[in-house]
Amino acid sequence: MLSAALTRYRERVNQHLIHHFDSLPPCAPDLLEAMRYGTLLGGKRVRPFLVYSVGTMLGADEKDLDPLAAAVECIHAYSLIHDDLPAMDNDDLRRGQPTCHIAFDESTAILAGDALQTLAFEILANAPLPAELERNRVTMIRTLARASGYQGMCGGQAIDLAATGKRIPLEALTQLHRLKTGALIRASVELATLAVPKLDPAHRDALVDYAEAIGLAFQVQDDILDITADTEQLGKPQGSDTEADKSTFPALLGLEGACEVAQSLHKDALTSLAQLPYNTEQLTDFARYIIERGQ
Amino acid sequence: MLSAALTRYRERVNQHLIHHFDSLPPCAPDLLEAMRYGTLLGGKRVRPFLVYSVGTMLGADEKDLDPLAAAVECIHAYSLIHDDLPAMDNDDLRRGQPTCHIAFDESTAILAGDALQTLAFEILANAPLPAELERNRVTMIRTLARASGYQGMCGGQAIDLAATGKRIPLEALTQLHRLKTGALIRASVELATLAVPKLDPAHRDALVDYAEAIGLAFQVQDDILDITADTEQLGKPQGSDTEADKSTFPALLGLEGACEVAQSLHKDALTSLAQLPYNTEQLTDFARYIIERGQ
Repeated sequence: MLSAALTRYRERVNQHLIHHFDSLPPCAPDLLEAMRYGTLLGGKRVRPFLVYSVGTMLGADEKDLDPLAAAVECIHAYSLIHDDLPAMDNDDLRRGQPTCHIAFDESTAILAGDALQTLAFEILANAPLPAELERNRVTMIRTLARASGYQGMCGGQAIDLAATGKRIPLEALTQLHRLKTGALIRASVELATLAVPKLDPAHRDALVDYAEAIGLAFQVQDDILDITADTEQLGKPQGSDTEADKSTFPALLGLEGACEVAQSLHKDALTSLAQLPYNTEQLTDFARYIIERGQ
Repeated sequence: MLSAALTRYRERVNQHLIHHFDSLPPCAPDLLEAMRYGTLLGGKRVRPFLVYSVGTMLGADEKDLDPLAAAVECIHAYSLIHDDLPAMDNDDLRRGQPTCHIAFDESTAILAGDALQTLAFEILANAPLPAELERNRVTMIRTLARASGYQGMCGGQAIDLAATGKRIPLEALTQLHRLKTGALIRASVELATLAVPKLDPAHRDALVDYAEAIGLAFQVQDDILDITADTEQLGKPQGSDTEADKSTFPALLGLEGACEVAQSLHKDALTSLAQLPYNTEQLTDFARYIIERGQ
């Protein structure tokens, strides 16, 4: 059930992204190709899934969710392209394929990331929203900007770089990941809540709590998989976090301690869902998937 | 007169930018410092000047122009930080000072550029606009996004990189600069026209024509100065375009031919201003300044 939904939404957002790339004029063909490559190169589409799954659960139209899902994926794709650069994580492989700067070159990869960030905001600014959602448009843009920038993903990435080679306390590691990956996962859910004209603030808060729990759980599980999974499963070299001397949850808490944190976050996610008067089956399955993937 | 206005608006936008940086939490201090450094490191503030000069000419309130000027300067600053990177133009000096990746490091410079782009959109999304301008907010965001991304500045930069080492025809060189520098200069003027509740479309078009003429003239003059000015005047090594094997207007047309193009664009700019029922003295002076600077 969940895997069918993941596939369907992944295909849906990919089609929407392809439509955007196809509609751009061929004035800078290499750049366009690199944007397309960096965005469409595999990936589970976790963030678009959350946009669609939360949005449709709340009664939103899938077509009103398309631009939200595409915008958030553009931000995610740009961040991966820049994170993989030699000056950053220096990764040659991403999802089992050459990273953008390997497939193209470094300058094109930098520009592709830059242009994908812009495209995210352009998509939101131009999205054909129904009249009753028009008043949410600026909040959508504000939500995505805050989650992406200094107080969100970029800030988290900077903290991560500064923490490399250091042993940072659990609180700092948690804050790092709340910004680096959590902020955009949270924004995916917040964007979905803006795709319906009216929502009980308590239900919105419960969904944000769910997003925060699975966002952090996702990262804890990533750290666990870096130790327990093999290179083929990961699509990148196994043990690369340890090799890069990154602080991780297993490094701080031991493998068992990290698994306990993941389980505890899983429970938090389910507690949040229990407060909602909607059919939360898909989001329940998704929370389990986040914790159990790769095992 | 013009130099006093340039100074005043430069100080004004700097203060506004400093206010934004000061209001950010110190969660990633190196990143914040790099964002501040890359933005406040000298510079004429040509784009903010255009926002203020056009906006006040049309009757806009200076305080409504502050966020527009700050946003456009954030985009410009991010583009300079990324353009200077080793994988791009590999410049160690900018405005006579170490470039961002020299003063900090490459990864911090990449992230500072990324976060400054986001900040531009965040500033526009959060700007405290008066009620009668609220309906222009999305158009402002759309205008800045289009000018910055694949169909604007980023696309122009990609075309520039692809053209390095090649002799490209005049039409392609013109298109390159219309995107690389022209789009953001045009957006500065367009943003200013959105800071008044109502504007005759013909007057808006004349202002856009003015922006396009001075935007291109600015680049032609930059190419000329790269040959005729010394390193101290430029704040970067003299002759660096020639050394980097870039196509330039003087390389295609000769120095005299390039000067003629600059003069012709100057004339176009004045013709556009002549269609406006406003006091265009400052914009007239500015067009002359663009052509005569550094001579």
